[in-house]
Amino acid sequence: MLFCSTTPLLLLQLCSGLSLDTVRDFLTREEDTIVFSLIERAKYPLNPPAYYVPAYFAGRRHDASFAELFVRESEAVQAKAGRYQSQQEIPFFPFRVPFPLAPPYNFTSELYSAAAFVNVNDEIWSVYFSLLLPLLAKNGDDGSYAATVASDLVCLQALSRRINYGRYVAEVKFRGDQQNYTTLIRNKDKDALMKLLTSEAQEDAVKRRVQKKAMVFGRNVTLDGPVETGDSNNGRASFKVDPSLVYKLYGQWVIPLTKQVELQYLLHRLD
Amino acid sequence: MLFCSTTPLLLLQLCSGLSLDTVRDFLTREEDTIVFSLIERAKYPLNPPAYYVPAYFAGRRHDASFAELFVRESEAVQAKAGRYQSQQEIPFFPFRVPFPLAPPYNFTSELYSAAAFVNVNDEIWSVYFSLLLPLLAKNGDDGSYAATVASDLVCLQALSRRINYGRYVAEVKFRGDQQNYTTLIRNKDKDALMKLLTSEAQEDAVKRRVQKKAMVFGRNVTLDGPVETGDSNNGRASFKVDPSLVYKLYGQWVIPLTKQVELQYLLHRLD
Repeated sequence: MLFCSTTPLLLLQLCSGLSLDTVRDFLTREEDTIVFSLIERAKYPLNPPAYYVPAYFAGRRHDASFAELFVRESEAVQAKAGRYQSQQEIPFFPFRVPFPLAPPYNFTSELYSAAAFVNVNDEIWSVYFSLLLPLLAKNGDDGSYAATVASDLVCLQALSRRINYGRYVAEVKFRGDQQNYTTLIRNKDKDALMKLLTSEAQEDAVKRRVQKKAMVFGRNVTLDGPVETGDSNNGRASFKVDPSLVYKLYGQWVIPLTKQVELQYLLHRLD
Repeated sequence: MLFCSTTPLLLLQLCSGLSLDTVRDFLTREEDTIVFSLIERAKYPLNPPAYYVPAYFAGRRHDASFAELFVRESEAVQAKAGRYQSQQEIPFFPFRVPFPLAPPYNFTSELYSAAAFVNVNDEIWSVYFSLLLPLLAKNGDDGSYAATVASDLVCLQALSRRINYGRYVAEVKFRGDQQNYTTLIRNKDKDALMKLLTSEAQEDAVKRRVQKKAMVFGRNVTLDGPVETGDSNNGRASFKVDPSLVYKLYGQWVIPLTKQVELQYLLHRLD
């Protein structure tokens, strides 16, 4: 069994290590990782040849973009290194990932196994390349395609880990209000479930916090300058990534996709 | 020819794109990358099994650590993707890196070709694993070896790019004072060269700036909290990476190793 289903909430938290606090701490810390990764990707120009499909290089035509081929090969190395033995990490290309060759470790599973497969990596992939990247990277081509797509991979992994962590969020919420959730899941009442998963005040706070993080982490820090964020007296301060883009990323994509993961996980929570 | 050796400095800069300003901007921006990468590595505990030599896993004994095997395989993928076609990037394991299969790009070389090979990656590798990592990561083992060594690789690549950029620094300094440097290089006068390469005021400013960056980027940003760095009224603020460690990293390793690269490059500048 993954958890002690008849014990009260406090004991559940002790036996699993999963609680609303640990979940919230994880998501808050991942915000920093996501903002760092976006700032690092924005260091490079768009570098369009890395994303053309079909791609023509190395003397032949490729049906996938250079970026996709790079992610596939990098994920194969990371799979071999055991990255996906942790349920927190989900590859974008799960087929043909090699068997892990890594030091052994007994991971505890905190998810309900029949629902743990839920993820929205396909949507994350599509949002990242189609919608986010054109807003994030400046036009230009400096030829550093490998470094650029390596930083794309770091962004994708951070977004995937954060959004698919919705499974853990849903698990904690389910455990905290089992009776209510069980009824709604049995009735497949998606609207009521989504309502139960939504806290507009909380979402608003998250969006404003990530925007502030983009301001703090994306400033040009000088020895003499102030460290305040936001607009300076001299007009608009310059940031490495537009803070309003990070606000939008969370409001339009990260939070809604996380809630999709939560909903899908719950719909499989009694399987 | 790599540059126009008889033209005045201004024209040199135009024909190469390399100037004291561009070099300084690059190094300042890399500080952010290095601090981000250290903060991200510090997210994971030390995870000692990733670094044991010999390593026992996947049913056999390995003469290299899991971390080294991971870096070797990752560098092979990145080499195939063309990362090392840019002279700014140097692999830690340059042997057997595959031929690049990547979209073509005509990189301009701004280094003197007989000296471009200079790098201190072996020293960086050794400093990183032996001296820096034990001070950076908290004790513990959470089994996330692949994610951990992937973040080691990002740190190593950032440090390598920054430190081996000393070649560009030396090239710009050489071009700016060609007569003086030529005499000292011919005489192999390392002490005088090192003196010419050293500016204690500048180095002090860099150390204090990276320390400040560790404070700004490593804070826990909250919606209500202040965004000031350093000690708060309530005592010492908590940072994800100790700012004094970043000060020490630069003072003891990054700056001295960069100057070693500059010196070695200059000693080959007339070859």
